Amino acid sequence: MLRTVTLLGATGSIGKSTRAVVAENPERLRIGAVVAGRDVEALARVAIETGASFAALADAAAGPALAEALAGTGIASGAGLPAVLDAVARDADIVVSAISGAAGLQATFAALTPGRVVALANKESLVCAGAAVMARAAAVGARILPLDSEHNALHQVLGAEPISAIRSMTLTASGGPFRTWSAERIAAARPEEALAHPNYAMGAKITIDSASMMNKGLELIEACFLFGLRPDQLEVLVHPQQLVHGLVTFRDGSVSAGMALPDMRVAAAHCLGIDGRLDAPPARFLDLALSAPLTFERPDLARFPALGHAIAALAAGGAMPAVLNAANEIAVAAYLERRIGFPGIAALVEAVCAESEAARAAPADVAEALAIDHEARNRARALLSRPPFAVT
Amino acid sequence: MLRTVTLLGATGSIGKSTRAVVAENPERLRIGAVVAGRDVEALARVAIETGASFAALADAAAGPALAEALAGTGIASGAGLPAVLDAVARDADIVVSAISGAAGLQATFAALTPGRVVALANKESLVCAGAAVMARAAAVGARILPLDSEHNALHQVLGAEPISAIRSMTLTASGGPFRTWSAERIAAARPEEALAHPNYAMGAKITIDSASMMNKGLELIEACFLFGLRPDQLEVLVHPQQLVHGLVTFRDGSVSAGMALPDMRVAAAHCLGIDGRLDAPPARFLDLALSAPLTFERPDLARFPALGHAIAALAAGGAMPAVLNAANEIAVAAYLERRIGFPGIAALVEAVCAESEAARAAPADVAEALAIDHEARNRARALLSRPPFAVT
Repeated sequence: MLRTVTLLGATGSIGKSTRAVVAENPERLRIGAVVAGRDVEALARVAIETGASFAALADAAAGPALAEALAGTGIASGAGLPAVLDAVARDADIVVSAISGAAGLQATFAALTPGRVVALANKESLVCAGAAVMARAAAVGARILPLDSEHNALHQVLGAEPISAIRSMTLTASGGPFRTWSAERIAAARPEEALAHPNYAMGAKITIDSASMMNKGLELIEACFLFGLRPDQLEVLVHPQQLVHGLVTFRDGSVSAGMALPDMRVAAAHCLGIDGRLDAPPARFLDLALSAPLTFERPDLARFPALGHAIAALAAGGAMPAVLNAANEIAVAAYLERRIGFPGIAALVEAVCAESEAARAAPADVAEALAIDHEARNRARALLSRPPFAVT
Repeated sequence: MLRTVTLLGATGSIGKSTRAVVAENPERLRIGAVVAGRDVEALARVAIETGASFAALADAAAGPALAEALAGTGIASGAGLPAVLDAVARDADIVVSAISGAAGLQATFAALTPGRVVALANKESLVCAGAAVMARAAAVGARILPLDSEHNALHQVLGAEPISAIRSMTLTASGGPFRTWSAERIAAARPEEALAHPNYAMGAKITIDSASMMNKGLELIEACFLFGLRPDQLEVLVHPQQLVHGLVTFRDGSVSAGMALPDMRVAAAHCLGIDGRLDAPPARFLDLALSAPLTFERPDLARFPALGHAIAALAAGGAMPAVLNAANEIAVAAYLERRIGFPGIAALVEAVCAESEAARAAPADVAEALAIDHEARNRARALLSRPPFAVT
């Protein structure tokens, strides 16, 4: 059976992995609509290459340029949130939700329709509105499959086991480029050093998050909502070889570990194989006899305080994870603009969380999530303009 | 709900692990009947300690001594195959089948009754009559759960996935005491060196099988029948740390690894947790941050030819795995009696297999399996009495 895939985030790294898996399996998968943020040329190229029927950019101003780039191809196009939601509303068996930011959150909500598989990589959906997204999926009868390597591995090894069987879940982290650095050296790290991620080629924002380990903190929050665990059941292990992506420890002492080469196409293939596993080419199989020894160590929260702040936000619950995420986005942007040093990222996040109302409830819908996000960003920007963050 | 466990092999290492798990969970599990081979005193002690209602020894001559040892306890007893089958026929939700040899095979067949869980550790059941045992379990509606660490790990990580989703399964091996030895040194190995297994305290037969890696070959054969795979889908990796017990590689590149501390109580707890996972005490949980690095290497069939013979017997199919197993039992006994050297074990197995009819069909029932076993043992004994095996 030929399944149609709508691809939100078609030009990013997850979009690229998804397109590769679709291209490997033309008898089982085809691309329907494609959506990206603002890159007209890249989206037009992807739309033509994949044979998409519709292309939409989140950036409303890019509509005319996209229409021009697709002129004569027969591919319809649009721009802005209505066009993104139009793409999501088109016929598709699987929606890959890998567009970042607020548009991604709205698109994910809209993608949850009866019987559909939503392969989820949009962080905001679970970090900012996890309870609301999971409740909506259950209510409409949509199936959420996690597309991040770590959550996908955990989903696979959990299988049909009930959550009550679990003692704990462990997400692994590469440790990032600063894993072996001293606190002093990390404090002086320049953006170009933080952008040198050892295993994956990813976007700048997520690469900085990997260096600060905030990325793993956000993933812990995602896992908590995705699997319905208590915050104290989640933990992180640093595993530089990045072959084990997640581990489920059951109450009886059994541990199931989800493994694969560090290649996003593996998780993508799992999510897209809704009628049975897809066949990967030989080079995509892990050969442990050829691997370096597998090592695991606890994360050092003294050198990587951002992870500790994420754990604290998860434990605080309510709106705090959304606040943390928004503050971190502003902080990372400020770091990349060299307005603050690397330790300033975690410090700004901590300051914004400390200023935010601890008892505020989790958002019940997209609008509430966006309001919390907006407020936290404003708070972060205000703090950035004052000492100790502003270097005046 | 209080579940009754009948324990075949109550005095061995698996019996001990099972009893420990039952003792840890008195509100969920109790022991019904207990069965052992020939140790009157040990079985009587176990029967009294566990509060069993019936005790049976496979050794028919031990009946009077067992009755005397249990006099006044209110525990009924018997001896010989009829008594073993009487134990199996008694009311039980779970039968742990960990008695070795022919009696274990007959008892396993008899234990397969509608709705029952049979936790299987009797090697002969799957190696000698795997197809017949699996067919009978399916026909009567019994559920076989593997109790060996490796097969239990594979069973857990396979979960509800269909066999068609699997590319390959890997069983890990400790590598045994000769893992790092040269072929010359292995050739001169004395039984007391072979009996020094690095991780588990087990019986002499299985410890020698671990040293020759025949144990892993027999486990490959078991896995093939248990999971219904093609022989070429199974492989072995040497993993000295013995924390990963088995790996399932799916067609899409995902790998699920079953892990646990090398403690047989973990697999026992999984098999006994039929109403939901049992809780293990804190010391039984794996902490990867405290573990040595995990290493994996391919087995060296030149130094460990017994494993190669097992792989060949599995590929040959039919009666050959039963022939291999019988020849190995005679060979190991001869080695322990210092009648042959360590390389003589694999050589005798190879010679018996070479002399056996390649096209002979797999046994359809216990009687046929026992006949094949009997013939192969006689053939092995005959070869042992002649050069090059007889040192005259």
